[in-house]
Amino acid sequence: MQKIRLGILGYGNLGRGVQYAAAQNPDMEVVAVFTRRDPAAVQTVLPVTVDKTENIGKYADKIDVMILCGGSATDLPEQSVQTVRMFHTVDSFDTHAKIPAYFDALDAAAKETGHVGAMSIGWDPGLFSLARIYFGSSLAGGSTYTFWGKGVSQGHSDAIRRIKGVKDARQYTVPIESALERVRNGENPELTTREKHTRECYVVAEDGADLVRIEKEIKEIPNYFADYDTTVHFISEEELKKNHSGIPHGGFVLRSGKSAAGNHFLMEFSLKLDSNPEFTSSILVAYARAVYRLAKEGKTGAVTVFDIAPKYLSPLTESEQRKQLL
Amino acid sequence: MQKIRLGILGYGNLGRGVQYAAAQNPDMEVVAVFTRRDPAAVQTVLPVTVDKTENIGKYADKIDVMILCGGSATDLPEQSVQTVRMFHTVDSFDTHAKIPAYFDALDAAAKETGHVGAMSIGWDPGLFSLARIYFGSSLAGGSTYTFWGKGVSQGHSDAIRRIKGVKDARQYTVPIESALERVRNGENPELTTREKHTRECYVVAEDGADLVRIEKEIKEIPNYFADYDTTVHFISEEELKKNHSGIPHGGFVLRSGKSAAGNHFLMEFSLKLDSNPEFTSSILVAYARAVYRLAKEGKTGAVTVFDIAPKYLSPLTESEQRKQLL
Repeated sequence: MQKIRLGILGYGNLGRGVQYAAAQNPDMEVVAVFTRRDPAAVQTVLPVTVDKTENIGKYADKIDVMILCGGSATDLPEQSVQTVRMFHTVDSFDTHAKIPAYFDALDAAAKETGHVGAMSIGWDPGLFSLARIYFGSSLAGGSTYTFWGKGVSQGHSDAIRRIKGVKDARQYTVPIESALERVRNGENPELTTREKHTRECYVVAEDGADLVRIEKEIKEIPNYFADYDTTVHFISEEELKKNHSGIPHGGFVLRSGKSAAGNHFLMEFSLKLDSNPEFTSSILVAYARAVYRLAKEGKTGAVTVFDIAPKYLSPLTESEQRKQLL
Repeated sequence: MQKIRLGILGYGNLGRGVQYAAAQNPDMEVVAVFTRRDPAAVQTVLPVTVDKTENIGKYADKIDVMILCGGSATDLPEQSVQTVRMFHTVDSFDTHAKIPAYFDALDAAAKETGHVGAMSIGWDPGLFSLARIYFGSSLAGGSTYTFWGKGVSQGHSDAIRRIKGVKDARQYTVPIESALERVRNGENPELTTREKHTRECYVVAEDGADLVRIEKEIKEIPNYFADYDTTVHFISEEELKKNHSGIPHGGFVLRSGKSAAGNHFLMEFSLKLDSNPEFTSSILVAYARAVYRLAKEGKTGAVTVFDIAPKYLSPLTESEQRKQLL
């Protein structure tokens, strides 16, 4: 069997996760990792060629799908459009508000050069988006709810770290169980931001820092914390390392509704993830398989999870899928 | 807006459910119901033309998608192949073992006549199949589990009714909570049939019937009950009517697994349905929309949920989907 040859652009948590995930898929191989750092200084979790990002063009014939593992804020908007001119790509762009513009730019570049660019792949956007579209389509009369957590939010942790006197911090987003129960009970509640999630912060302060001020400043950060019930725990650096060094996450998508005859239905999808980036990576690899197959069929342009039939994701043949999974 | 014009072939619980579901979708209308009975004797839940099945051919220009609401055992294998020669179709064929042969026959007839036939649509096969393929593809290293219930199994209820001395019966399939918990805990257990589900039977016996013999006969029916821990409750006809007249169902699809780095992931999809046929119908209607759109694009042949990209199901435009659901 000819394996699908992957490249990894960017080697942080997500890039490492892609290497791990590819190792679990016998039809995949990672050809090279590309980095802006000195390749000699990059320690990969499994043996693989490491090259400089500027050399990526030399791999045009050696890589089938490039998986973009940069961040959504600054890396991806630029990288995706540049890279899709040379390769079929998969990325995890997750800045919801900017998705329409990102799609248009990626679509134009991909179509111009005859490539496929799969964007916003992961679990949210990604599997959670799939739950939202399948649930909403399957039951017209109802309401859909998304809850996140319990899990670490990198963005919120960073926001705390920027406060004066904070040495390190970890923020957990926690879904409010009673709100989940109201949805499950078919109440179709209107829930405010504060009623859906709480925020738990574990903060290491610098010696002699004003803890009262730090706590107040955290709780007042607009958008990030001001609209939530926020708890702040000051802990030691050792405790942070010991108990809060993982990157777990997860969440719930629910749809509750009724038939025209008044019968109630509840659909629920949930994830519990020990490692947020490793799970995202595992989904990126499945969509690399889909992109490879779509490209073989002559498809070009930007695609999201909504545009890709599930058959393209599975390593099984279509008749095996019908026999084993339908 | 031009509505999608639906026909309903067969008017039992599923056909009624399709009428209810179409009423919740503003882009749909039901043009006619077709029945083998005397049309004048059919009471529909909402006003609609009722005609004889033999007149179906007269509606070729009036109906975009025909939804087949017959049973899998005898109706569908014949009906689907005949009907797809005249219309695009959607059906809920659910005899797992016969899916490959059914697919081939439907595919040939549909391709020959330029139609699309969506088969095995509903929640299992259907949404549960989608969970199995998305979960399995997203996490190569893991095990997938399907549990059904708590819900009424029509087939098992019928099997009990065939026993001498039984006047009426209702059978519930019940998932074993401790087995679900073992899966959720990441134990990846090997579960026997008996370890996954129990069977609860509510039986109305005829006056003077031998209850001991009936209970023994139920518990010994091969495949249906012999491999399960089965409980038999004898109740009055009134109690059966009062407490067991609904057709609820539901279930769980779970996948538990690990990354190559050893981190654990759990995916879980569950359904709680007050009415099994009405929920199935609601999904049939969503897939009628998909079939309509696929046919417009020139697609022909048999398709399952695996072949249909989610974008085809939603009433939203593609850019609305990306904006609101991604």
